[in-house]
Amino acid sequence: MSTYAVIMAGGAGTRFWPASRTNRPKQLLPLATAGEPLLAATVRRIAPLVPPERVYIATGTHLAAATAACVPDVPRAQILAEPVPRNTAPCIGWAADVIAARDPDARIVVLPSDHFIRDEDGFRRALARALDAARGDVIATVGIAPTRPETGYGYIEVGDAIADDTFAVKRFVEKPDAARAADFVAGGRHLWNAGMFFFRACAMGAAIAEHLPELGRGLAKIAADPGALGAVFPGLPNISIDHGVMERARHVAVVRGDFGWSDVGSWQSAWELADKDADGNALPANAVAVEARSNLVRNFSRSDKIIALVGVSDLVVVDTGDAVLVLPRDRAQDVRAVVEALKARGETKLL
Amino acid sequence: MSTYAVIMAGGAGTRFWPASRTNRPKQLLPLATAGEPLLAATVRRIAPLVPPERVYIATGTHLAAATAACVPDVPRAQILAEPVPRNTAPCIGWAADVIAARDPDARIVVLPSDHFIRDEDGFRRALARALDAARGDVIATVGIAPTRPETGYGYIEVGDAIADDTFAVKRFVEKPDAARAADFVAGGRHLWNAGMFFFRACAMGAAIAEHLPELGRGLAKIAADPGALGAVFPGLPNISIDHGVMERARHVAVVRGDFGWSDVGSWQSAWELADKDADGNALPANAVAVEARSNLVRNFSRSDKIIALVGVSDLVVVDTGDAVLVLPRDRAQDVRAVVEALKARGETKLL
Repeated sequence: MSTYAVIMAGGAGTRFWPASRTNRPKQLLPLATAGEPLLAATVRRIAPLVPPERVYIATGTHLAAATAACVPDVPRAQILAEPVPRNTAPCIGWAADVIAARDPDARIVVLPSDHFIRDEDGFRRALARALDAARGDVIATVGIAPTRPETGYGYIEVGDAIADDTFAVKRFVEKPDAARAADFVAGGRHLWNAGMFFFRACAMGAAIAEHLPELGRGLAKIAADPGALGAVFPGLPNISIDHGVMERARHVAVVRGDFGWSDVGSWQSAWELADKDADGNALPANAVAVEARSNLVRNFSRSDKIIALVGVSDLVVVDTGDAVLVLPRDRAQDVRAVVEALKARGETKLL
Repeated sequence: MSTYAVIMAGGAGTRFWPASRTNRPKQLLPLATAGEPLLAATVRRIAPLVPPERVYIATGTHLAAATAACVPDVPRAQILAEPVPRNTAPCIGWAADVIAARDPDARIVVLPSDHFIRDEDGFRRALARALDAARGDVIATVGIAPTRPETGYGYIEVGDAIADDTFAVKRFVEKPDAARAADFVAGGRHLWNAGMFFFRACAMGAAIAEHLPELGRGLAKIAADPGALGAVFPGLPNISIDHGVMERARHVAVVRGDFGWSDVGSWQSAWELADKDADGNALPANAVAVEARSNLVRNFSRSDKIIALVGVSDLVVVDTGDAVLVLPRDRAQDVRAVVEALKARGETKLL
């Protein structure tokens, strides 16, 4: 029984403007490790468990070429281009069918393409456990041991222990308010839902047929006639795998993961993950910093460009050749306001 | 009797890095008025008194071509290229001789190339008064009515009144400490020395012969054989017109000027002089500013580059394509530290 991976790389996102653009989204950018796009890191990180020959990457049509260029070891035919974005259930169901057609016994790992993992060995150990749990009709996931009362993520409440660090899922919980999030962290029975799923191809097919029969029928048409993708896919129901399958499936297991995970959600988290000098600055090698502290400087422009900071602290400075952004790290989320301003002005070239 | 101008445009200066470079110094940059280099503004501003046909510009050999390109109305032969920098006395003496050879009766205005004047009519009225005072052997200057106890400038103590706003000079005073500068402002008898001089060509020749005889002999050699410039000029004494002539000359007059003068000494003063929006930001037209206040943004890179600021105040952000500078306005002088760091690193290309 071989293991395959489906890496979800359809994200757009404006949180890394000016580096991220419609045609160069977050996962194609080296936001955590210098020189390595997040997607490339994802493929490299799982290679000991799933070699590139068994990796599939789901993305949008407009990103297929750039995605393939980012991970040249993944066979081009395994870049799955969705004709339109239709949320995670149709995407995962389709990818599972494509893999099942190649290997009916396939076990599948579904992973986001744009996260960072500090302890890669620990990560692979958790994946191996989750794959081990994904027997029969069990769909497994890896939940991240929370390190703060985060209100931006969904949580997974753990039930009875099944094996080492492996538990039955009691329930999936929507993004909580601050008080509940604090309770979750204190209680020790809730994990972050990080969008990682593990299942046998046939188990996912059965779960979709049972819980999302309309989706199941559409996917069956595509499986019978792959040429029908463009006609059928846009009509598939727009629903997430969490709501459509995970919350309804009878047998769901969760492996507790604690391996230095980050969803790299903003320039602030890019700074947190970056290597920093003694003054807390994360800088390109040729930058100049004079009495400057705890800044993030990223240069996506010509490599010999000098970015010089004097006497500033806690700033994000990003240069892309056609744009420069300057904002405080603690306002990293407000980069959206710039994107909105450019949109209102019709500056689509920069979006 | 015709009036000629000598504009001193040999300055180097690092205070406007990254915009200013060895081969693109301050006076060639549009630092006060959008689109108009300081030197071009200087030539335009005096044109009602001295047309470009009678303007001479003293600069360094390496800057001659760029200087000529900046002021195309000034005849190319009137760009006087000093073989080496030798301070202001040799430069002014040489230029005066060149003009005297063309017009022995010439009256000469010497002006810096890199200052800003808000009230141009008032400036020209002061110049007309100073020219009027520069009769016989009188050397005149315009002193700026001080608006703050500045310790970075020399002062001129006024003596008896000669005519409207025109006084005998009692003495030239070196840069004072803060207490003396405050006394000067309070006393109302001191003006800033702004490096403007007015004299008849023959009067300057006589003053140099009397007070700087070595310089006078060297200049006489060049006047007799202009081809000897490269051989003789480097051997001329390195002395300023202030120390060498003005402080020693018998008849020196000063016209009190109050016309919104600035020496555009730093990015801070560029911000002070710039047109600003309601939030105090001086921005390129296509910049994006969200909850940003009192910033100076200058783009010397491609004109369609977007510089976006969110939630920052009182910063200077300058982009030149090959470099970006970010520093607080009130640390504008510290741009020198960046230049020093680049020099230490051997990044001469950017200096």
